[in-house]
Amino acid sequence: MSVTHASFTIERDYPQPPARVFAGYADPAAKRRWLIEGEGFTVESYQPGFGVGEAEHSSFRFKGGPLITNDTVYTDIEEGRRIVFTYWMTLEGKPMSTSLVTVLIEPNGTGTRMTFTEQGAYNEGFADVAGREQGTRLLLDALERDLSANG
Amino acid sequence: MSVTHASFTIERDYPQPPARVFAGYADPAAKRRWLIEGEGFTVESYQPGFGVGEAEHSSFRFKGGPLITNDTVYTDIEEGRRIVFTYWMTLEGKPMSTSLVTVLIEPNGTGTRMTFTEQGAYNEGFADVAGREQGTRLLLDALERDLSANG
Repeated sequence: MSVTHASFTIERDYPQPPARVFAGYADPAAKRRWLIEGEGFTVESYQPGFGVGEAEHSSFRFKGGPLITNDTVYTDIEEGRRIVFTYWMTLEGKPMSTSLVTVLIEPNGTGTRMTFTEQGAYNEGFADVAGREQGTRLLLDALERDLSANG
Repeated sequence: MSVTHASFTIERDYPQPPARVFAGYADPAAKRRWLIEGEGFTVESYQPGFGVGEAEHSSFRFKGGPLITNDTVYTDIEEGRRIVFTYWMTLEGKPMSTSLVTVLIEPNGTGTRMTFTEQGAYNEGFADVAGREQGTRLLLDALERDLSANG
């Protein structure tokens, strides 16, 4: 068993102020819209959480495929500024990866600059780091659309 | 607030077989000896844990200094082979860091090769990554002594 260690950083600018972008993570209804119920995903279970030491769980299938689980624990939160969490995933019960994510939220003019960094430990067979980064970019696109639609 | 992202890897060879080295993490009595009750540390609280999704908590002072907390959640375990966990620390209530640790345990002759990788997000004021690596080396020294003494 090999484990691939890698990291990637994505920067995004949003026209909304930091409090709105932060709420994309803090508000369970907003988070459910952009993070959980993406196009093509069938949600099997979802228990939201937000707060240091709090857990969040979801299980879902993409286009009728195998069952995927995502467990998250929030480890460090500064209101409106910083969210740190770890999440780990399984595919049909097989452990895929554990990731440590830092989301920095900073004022940028009247909007927000977000810096999203994922440091990951990806198990053998699940070490498509470029694919993980691309999937994360698609999620941040969904956050952007959600902020615009629910302003 | 800046966050420093960094990683380090430490390799260790132990004369004991993989099952013994793995038990250094899995057995709460062993773990308490080498990881928690180090020289100079006063333990204020300790709730051990081991298992995917399980939490572990300790709080302690070093040489009568400020209160430090350590919360751990185990995210991926393969018996005798692989332990992945995330831990986050505070100092007098201030969040210091979150770290993702991969411990790989492999046979090496009649002994064990351990590869310990920490990927960390270190908050401003707590970004002494070289110090964190050195502290980790001292802990793995303590594990080595404990394995020899309790063989």
